[in-house]
Amino acid sequence: MTCSPTIIVTNDDGIYSEGLIILCEAVRDLGKTIVVAPETPKSASGLGLTLHKPIRLQKMRFGGVEMYSINGTPSDVVHVALNILCDKADLVVSGVNLGDNTSVQTILSSGTIGAAAQAALLGIPAAAFSAMTVDTGSLTSDKQSLELMKRVIRIVSKHLLEKGLPEGVDLVSVNFPERITRNTVVKIVPPARLRFREAVEKRVDPHGREYYWLYGEPVEPEEGTDVYVVLKEKNIALTPLTLNLSPPSPTRAVESLLPLVDELNTSIRG
Amino acid sequence: MTCSPTIIVTNDDGIYSEGLIILCEAVRDLGKTIVVAPETPKSASGLGLTLHKPIRLQKMRFGGVEMYSINGTPSDVVHVALNILCDKADLVVSGVNLGDNTSVQTILSSGTIGAAAQAALLGIPAAAFSAMTVDTGSLTSDKQSLELMKRVIRIVSKHLLEKGLPEGVDLVSVNFPERITRNTVVKIVPPARLRFREAVEKRVDPHGREYYWLYGEPVEPEEGTDVYVVLKEKNIALTPLTLNLSPPSPTRAVESLLPLVDELNTSIRG
Repeated sequence: MTCSPTIIVTNDDGIYSEGLIILCEAVRDLGKTIVVAPETPKSASGLGLTLHKPIRLQKMRFGGVEMYSINGTPSDVVHVALNILCDKADLVVSGVNLGDNTSVQTILSSGTIGAAAQAALLGIPAAAFSAMTVDTGSLTSDKQSLELMKRVIRIVSKHLLEKGLPEGVDLVSVNFPERITRNTVVKIVPPARLRFREAVEKRVDPHGREYYWLYGEPVEPEEGTDVYVVLKEKNIALTPLTLNLSPPSPTRAVESLLPLVDELNTSIRG
Repeated sequence: MTCSPTIIVTNDDGIYSEGLIILCEAVRDLGKTIVVAPETPKSASGLGLTLHKPIRLQKMRFGGVEMYSINGTPSDVVHVALNILCDKADLVVSGVNLGDNTSVQTILSSGTIGAAAQAALLGIPAAAFSAMTVDTGSLTSDKQSLELMKRVIRIVSKHLLEKGLPEGVDLVSVNFPERITRNTVVKIVPPARLRFREAVEKRVDPHGREYYWLYGEPVEPEEGTDVYVVLKEKNIALTPLTLNLSPPSPTRAVESLLPLVDELNTSIRG
């Protein structure tokens, strides 16, 4: 690289998350970092954008890092940063999310991955980092884990800056187990389909009216998936993702649906 | 089918949307319909779930249809309906969204498609219906369009109930043009990547503080994509979608990333 690359750093847990500071520290010597994060946690915001209310940016300093807080989503960050704070970005990194983002179910609603996906749609190499955690503070309580996590983030980010992503891969998602040791292994695995099976509990409020709590019961993970690697093996899952959304055998899918389309077209003309 | 199938009907524009009534009318003679929709519009909610506050259901009647309003997202609907209102569902239909849901960019943040995707993750056949609209009321202002739209929805829904979806296809998304005539054609097309290129406009409030508006400028669509079919040709796009998220050539992607993984594992052990 002839000039210093620009790296956008964001998350969905908000500017006060220790995960953001870890991410900043891991990548800051790789280029010029622009740190913008939601002023409040935006978990499960997916790829949502703030189109119907004004967005404000506030320059601030937290954990020794200069950053901007935004009253918007992780996806807003990518567009606001690219339009207001820099001309171009060579890499977008998002995280470290407090809680793993394993399984298609979780990936599709994750704000952390949403920010990386927004960048990917614009053709910018992007990576999302998440960690299985039981409570806040657990990311920094174990010094060895913390050190190894930063090392992994730095190597992945450097690789993306230098080599980009392989053809057909739009972004990578890295999920860390609760604890990282010298014996922890990085594995390339696809996402499981489900992480939770949602259940609903009915309750009655003091006024005698029914209400419901939605909650997720963990699904027993299939071997060789991100969920299995992170939760069962307690290893690190590196998951290449595509945003293609087209069936793996497009021709076969189209052929199977042709009778339906014929029926539809006949019905419209009739 | 030996007994009457159960169909969950939902949307992301809320119970008072004319699109929901159209969808109900189109499918109601195909089985037992359970209509549950957000009490207020939940556009761009993606696959978001309401896990941190109580959910309430309210039975009501609107447009001659018995339904439940929910203070949650379209994705909540699927789980609440399956846990509280019925034992199983044979089909989930979502829409008709006011505004097209074309392109990967839009699909990934759409609540309409989010509800269908939630169902798909649970193995239930699902379809999302959306219509390019310029203003509310436009779905019902043209009688022929309305009649043909219902016909298409009914045929697609019946097909899914009887045949399910082809292997590798998790759900279908149907996008209608602004107006449907006898000359309108249904085409099977993949999603474009982008629908909008986001821009940011800077303004200054009366207090002298800067704020920003995020807005999308339409991208010129590529031929043979959903955006092109709906916006340029003014035809109907039927788009089979997969939630697989794995690269089209997983083996090649894994091979390309192996040097990175080797570097990571060496670094962790070292």
